[in-house]
Amino acid sequence: MRAAVLGATGMVGRTFVRLLEGHPWFKVKTLVASERSAGKRYGELVPEAPEEFKELEVVSLSDFLREPDVDLVFNALPASVSGEVEEKLAERVPVFTNARAHRYDDDVPILVPEVNPEHLKLVELQREGRGWEGFIVTNPNCSTAILTVSLAPLREFGIRDVRVATMQAISGAGFSGLSALAIHDNVIPLIEGEEWKIENESRKILRRLERSIVPAEFTVSAIATRVPVLHGHTEAVFIELERGSIDELREAFESFDPLRKLDLPSYERPIVYEEVPQPRLHRERGKGLTVTVGRLEESARGFKYVVTGHNLVRGAAGGSVLNAELAKRLGYI
Amino acid sequence: MRAAVLGATGMVGRTFVRLLEGHPWFKVKTLVASERSAGKRYGELVPEAPEEFKELEVVSLSDFLREPDVDLVFNALPASVSGEVEEKLAERVPVFTNARAHRYDDDVPILVPEVNPEHLKLVELQREGRGWEGFIVTNPNCSTAILTVSLAPLREFGIRDVRVATMQAISGAGFSGLSALAIHDNVIPLIEGEEWKIENESRKILRRLERSIVPAEFTVSAIATRVPVLHGHTEAVFIELERGSIDELREAFESFDPLRKLDLPSYERPIVYEEVPQPRLHRERGKGLTVTVGRLEESARGFKYVVTGHNLVRGAAGGSVLNAELAKRLGYI
Amino acid sequence: MRAAVLGATGMVGRTFVRLLEGHPWFKVKTLVASERSAGKRYGELVPEAPEEFKELEVVSLSDFLREPDVDLVFNALPASVSGEVEEKLAERVPVFTNARAHRYDDDVPILVPEVNPEHLKLVELQREGRGWEGFIVTNPNCSTAILTVSLAPLREFGIRDVRVATMQAISGAGFSGLSALAIHDNVIPLIEGEEWKIENESRKILRRLERSIVPAEFTVSAIATRVPVLHGHTEAVFIELERGSIDELREAFESFDPLRKLDLPSYERPIVYEEVPQPRLHRERGKGLTVTVGRLEESARGFKYVVTGHNLVRGAAGGSVLNAELAKRLGYI
Amino acid sequence: MRAAVLGATGMVGRTFVRLLEGHPWFKVKTLVASERSAGKRYGELVPEAPEEFKELEVVSLSDFLREPDVDLVFNALPASVSGEVEEKLAERVPVFTNARAHRYDDDVPILVPEVNPEHLKLVELQREGRGWEGFIVTNPNCSTAILTVSLAPLREFGIRDVRVATMQAISGAGFSGLSALAIHDNVIPLIEGEEWKIENESRKILRRLERSIVPAEFTVSAIATRVPVLHGHTEAVFIELERGSIDELREAFESFDPLRKLDLPSYERPIVYEEVPQPRLHRERGKGLTVTVGRLEESARGFKYVVTGHNLVRGAAGGSVLNAELAKRLGYI
Repeated sequence: MRAAVLGATGMVGRTFVRLLEGHPWFKVKTLVASERSAGKRYGELVPEAPEEFKELEVVSLSDFLREPDVDLVFNALPASVSGEVEEKLAERVPVFTNARAHRYDDDVPILVPEVNPEHLKLVELQREGRGWEGFIVTNPNCSTAILTVSLAPLREFGIRDVRVATMQAISGAGFSGLSALAIHDNVIPLIEGEEWKIENESRKILRRLERSIVPAEFTVSAIATRVPVLHGHTEAVFIELERGSIDELREAFESFDPLRKLDLPSYERPIVYEEVPQPRLHRERGKGLTVTVGRLEESARGFKYVVTGHNLVRGAAGGSVLNAELAKRLGYI
Repeated sequence: MRAAVLGATGMVGRTFVRLLEGHPWFKVKTLVASERSAGKRYGELVPEAPEEFKELEVVSLSDFLREPDVDLVFNALPASVSGEVEEKLAERVPVFTNARAHRYDDDVPILVPEVNPEHLKLVELQREGRGWEGFIVTNPNCSTAILTVSLAPLREFGIRDVRVATMQAISGAGFSGLSALAIHDNVIPLIEGEEWKIENESRKILRRLERSIVPAEFTVSAIATRVPVLHGHTEAVFIELERGSIDELREAFESFDPLRKLDLPSYERPIVYEEVPQPRLHRERGKGLTVTVGRLEESARGFKYVVTGHNLVRGAAGGSVLNAELAKRLGYI
Repeated sequence: MRAAVLGATGMVGRTFVRLLEGHPWFKVKTLVASERSAGKRYGELVPEAPEEFKELEVVSLSDFLREPDVDLVFNALPASVSGEVEEKLAERVPVFTNARAHRYDDDVPILVPEVNPEHLKLVELQREGRGWEGFIVTNPNCSTAILTVSLAPLREFGIRDVRVATMQAISGAGFSGLSALAIHDNVIPLIEGEEWKIENESRKILRRLERSIVPAEFTVSAIATRVPVLHGHTEAVFIELERGSIDELREAFESFDPLRKLDLPSYERPIVYEEVPQPRLHRERGKGLTVTVGRLEESARGFKYVVTGHNLVRGAAGGSVLNAELAKRLGYI
Repeated sequence: MRAAVLGATGMVGRTFVRLLEGHPWFKVKTLVASERSAGKRYGELVPEAPEEFKELEVVSLSDFLREPDVDLVFNALPASVSGEVEEKLAERVPVFTNARAHRYDDDVPILVPEVNPEHLKLVELQREGRGWEGFIVTNPNCSTAILTVSLAPLREFGIRDVRVATMQAISGAGFSGLSALAIHDNVIPLIEGEEWKIENESRKILRRLERSIVPAEFTVSAIATRVPVLHGHTEAVFIELERGSIDELREAFESFDPLRKLDLPSYERPIVYEEVPQPRLHRERGKGLTVTVGRLEESARGFKYVVTGHNLVRGAAGGSVLNAELAKRLGYI
């Protein structure tokens, strides 16, 4: 299948390109970026690009929209332009997007394959309701992706309340999103919109989708901070459950491997348990798709643990590629 | 009054010396360190020492214990040797200590002057029960000190539950307590014993002491992490209260100034409210004794906020000096 | 004397304001910034401003130029706008500037009071040649300032050649001049224009000015790099001299104190010798005006040493304030 | 050939093990470490070890020396114990060592295959003079390795003088060799013994070995500093040459590929030219064996450039493995 990557020169876009190099199902044919970059070779704009893509000529968004001759689209454009672009594209092709523009639409799933694969069927509502041939599938915000993977095996114990403090890496702010002077030797406990996203997206992802949508009954509270780490978001989690012992939780983390049978090309065991999870040591685990959980202990009203994962892979491009693989395996594309 | 500083060459010891330079009530006469340092000039061991102390000859602990000719002692020795040393000294002089050796003794207060000044009267139990002329007053662990200062104005709203994730500075680990290779570009979510201390010391500090001790009724859960910041611990706090609006909480933080009238030499307003508290920007506030609170918001089951403060001053030596000043003002020394 | 600070909200501008707080000779009356900031209180724009200036209303550059009612001006504007602004102001008042716009004009001194105070008389050429009542005095680029202070005591040994590799702090790049992603865990050996400045400014500063200008006869080569340090530029220097022993050089560094007698308000001993100079430990020495020299050793063709100093104080605003003090003491203003 | 790695749990030892995983010529059979580690599984001591070695039981040095049943040895032990150990082993097997114990022996080469492969024949002197069946081949100190690779293509222009300022990564100091408190937000211009090593080892490596040894005629001066970077030493180099234009030098860097024909398993192009070499971006180039050169410019008395390379691979274990491959290809083992 022929794929396009939109926003291919940004932080997440580059990660898409890197992850799709040599992909067995999806062949990147088109790299889309701003007017300013259009016409240049990708290797000129992104020196560390894989050889395979270095000579590819970058296409402007307007040119691409005129004739989007591909079978699926990965979108790493900013949210501000993504809303319309994705709708226009979804008329004809499936769009797997990291942008938040449509995440909160009722008929658009925020998909994490290991967590809520059944939400993929929401795309049928899109096709029916909007008359599209394609559809939009979003992945969650980076810290939500990492959090929900760690929460998935705990659902069986009845989640009641989650409180999470994040320590997020600087690459989450994009190339020039964060001044060195701001974060050097510092912690910045403010990331615009992040706490709202974690609280709302995780509840949307973890609700059940049966005949109708069953809203999540648990509460989520988040405090988001930025720390001087290159890649890898770390999250300190306090959780209240209806039942479950520490041994059962540990076992649930260690045995969590829900999509093994689907044999998706990028799939890796989603969780590894390790006593002291650390972003620098563990962010590349499972090619960046595995989150590391540890420090699980009983706490005053439940349990506490720490999870760390790669914000650009598990938390962005890698999750989106996995979404496309799931969609293909299940026959949606 | 003539003071001694024990462990004067360590991280906390140096902070004691710096804070006591030119102190109007306490005059440092004796600097105590290991046998290895004994006999050397303090300025030789600590190049950045205040001029006033550079020529002072360092005394070994054993020599000092033989004849502790001072009126009070500040202790920055490690816990492992402090237990016995403090007991021996307290037979004759008041000891204000940063070590944890006696923190959990029933008759020893963990004192934070702005939070539980009335606990100071526990020293009477020591004098009676142990037959001492002096006494031991401890200050809490660094992250507990910062946390409890922020909790103090919230007591009036009925604290039910506290969950705190700390992001602690590397100076908290001592001079060579942490390898550069371990913390560079990393977050380490394990600080031995720290979570237990936060959970237990904060409940001891915040209990009421009336005719008898009224145990704290709220719960505390902590996850402690180390981040690549020089000084300044940052804490993300989720709190459940019995009552209170966000405006009332904000007002309580902003007006908290309990010991103003006592006119203690080192006293500074203990809390400043600021939208985005950050360790590098705010750690020196109030000469390191003021904690900065911010990001106060309603949360699923209560409120959330962030507090940051100087771990070596508010969290160690500065708190201890304030303890001694309170003890003097109230006539205990 | 009534002073204005131009570019008062930038990195260097803030340093000017901080250093001029309570200055015995110069009273800051006017803070000038961009149109966007005009009309706001300075404390609103710069939260950490000294109390003295918090309520001062910021003036726009165009308003200020219409009626520059002060006795001297400190300029921290970018070079791009400084050229014309400084010329216009110098018609009436003395301008002490950190901008490079006029540094290379023949009749404008690049002044470092401890190094080339006699260059100040160049301002007479300005007054004659340009018909100005005021004049322009520049301070050098930050790394040049630090380097030339360390070279000054070595002139007596006949400097032949200097090679310097700098390791410059991130605050030298301004508030948002450097992305966190670029410098985190990295060294960037490119700072636009910096090497040229070091090579040329240091030779202009260290030439002799007798009846006529005697060009410097030595050569200077520089490699400039950025390192993940907040403040404090560190420079590794290889120097060839005509004569001199290591003991004589050491003595020259240690006894260098040329302006002591002038009793300038901000003057500090310009050099302290210390075995291992380090930016984090020594940048605040002498309120940021003292550079620390160390590691002096013989080398294949001469000597090598390391110097570190505060880039915003010694290397920018502090040097400029010292320039104004010298000008006043010598009767130029 | 069966290989042993001595000091297998240290920083350099782990790098040896990682690089030898799946090596086509050398099969690691024995991992040697301290008595404390002996008897444990390697995976227990080094969690990130390759699967292939996780179950291998670590052997103590004394046990290994009793019966060193391998065909070659890679040594990553500290210099203090290496002297005798290497001599004893070399009686029977070839030793490729990162330790400096024998680097300065007349009959022991400091070998960098791309730079001085002909020095390998010195081992014949060892066999003759010492009566050994094996021999000792050392690789240089990490910063020397990186420097000499960059100097090799410049030899044809007649090197006269080299001055180098290094900015070295923290992993060069070993696991706990450097306290976080020392290097955080800092540059430390002192690495014990490093400057001497650079100055002397580079001259030994770059001398010619014809009928007899022709001492290097050029001079080398070094200033070594530590910077807060994980891996990758960066070096600012000033060089004087007898002849050569900047274009010729650039061409010499770009075409340098001396051992291509030997087809050594680990061989990578030793130099890539790139405008702004940076440790975080380029340290993994060529699996860590390629150094990146850039910023080449004319300078007052010659040229200046910057080189960066991986200190643990190019500068230690990787260089040593390449040494062994060269020795095998040339029939010495």
